[in-house]
Formats: sequence, C-alpha cells, structure tokens
Amino acid sequence: MSESLKVSIDGMTCGHCVASVTEEISSIEGVEKVDVNLNAGGISTATITSSKPIDETAVGEAVAEAGYTLVSNNG
Amino acid sequence: MSESLKVSIDGMTCGHCVASVTEEISSIEGVEKVDVNLNAGGISTATITSSKPIDETAVGEAVAEAGYTLVSNNG
Repeated sequence: MSESLKVSIDGMTCGHCVASVTEEISSIEGVEKVDVNLNAGGISTATITSSKPIDETAVGEAVAEAGYTLVSNNG
Repeated sequence: MSESLKVSIDGMTCGHCVASVTEEISSIEGVEKVDVNLNAGGISTATITSSKPIDETAVGEAVAEAGYTLVSNNG
C-alpha cells in the first residue's frame, strides 16, 4: 500500500535542481519514489510516492533544504 | 606568472551549474582560479586564471563535460 502526494515548487531551473530536490525528498522515511516535473522559470512539481502517510511538513523542510520553496501542497 | 582567459558559456541557470563548470575547468592542468559570472537565461562568463598557457580546446571540452556550450573564446 502506498500513498502519493503532489507538491508545487518554485525556483528550480535545471537538472541539478531536480537532483537536489529528489535527493532531499527521497531521504524522508517511507518515500519510495520522487518524480519531478521541471518547469524552469516557473512552478515545478514533485510527485512523491510513499509506503507510509507523507508528512507534508517534512516535505517542505526537504525542499527548503535543497534551496527551493514549496508553493502549495495538495490542499 | 599567470595567464587569464575569459570565455562565454550558454545554458547555465543556477548555482549548481556554476559549481559544475567551475569543477570541470578547475581540473585542467595549471588552472589556479575560475570565476564564473552567472547570467541565468543568457550568456554567462568564466574567467580562468592559469599558471601556464590555457588550452582553449581543453576549456571547451571541460564546459561540454559539465553540460554547457562554449559560445566564444577571447578571439
């Protein structure tokens, strides 16, 4: 059983940014997969698949740790 | 005694790009310093200081290795 959450992220511009965000979010406990859809110069999205309920606060912290801003979550 | 060369690079968008280019160019023999001036969405520049004559072909290869395109050299 897995959950998924799609979040919007501002400030990502290139593949390195994608790698940073993917790495940080992947380090959250339970996260199995992170699919980032890069929109350079706009709002990118990350779809997170997890084996346990996803802590959105942890996702926000991971995105900030990578140097970007979470724009909104699935609410 | 040192030489310096300023080159123009296209395709760089963020600090990760700067780090990649700096790392690749720094690996060229003799290179002492690399100063990158990022112009996201435009043409960035890298000023290379070296203890020996700078091989511009090697610079082009280093930039390509980092994933970017050398636009012009000092010619």
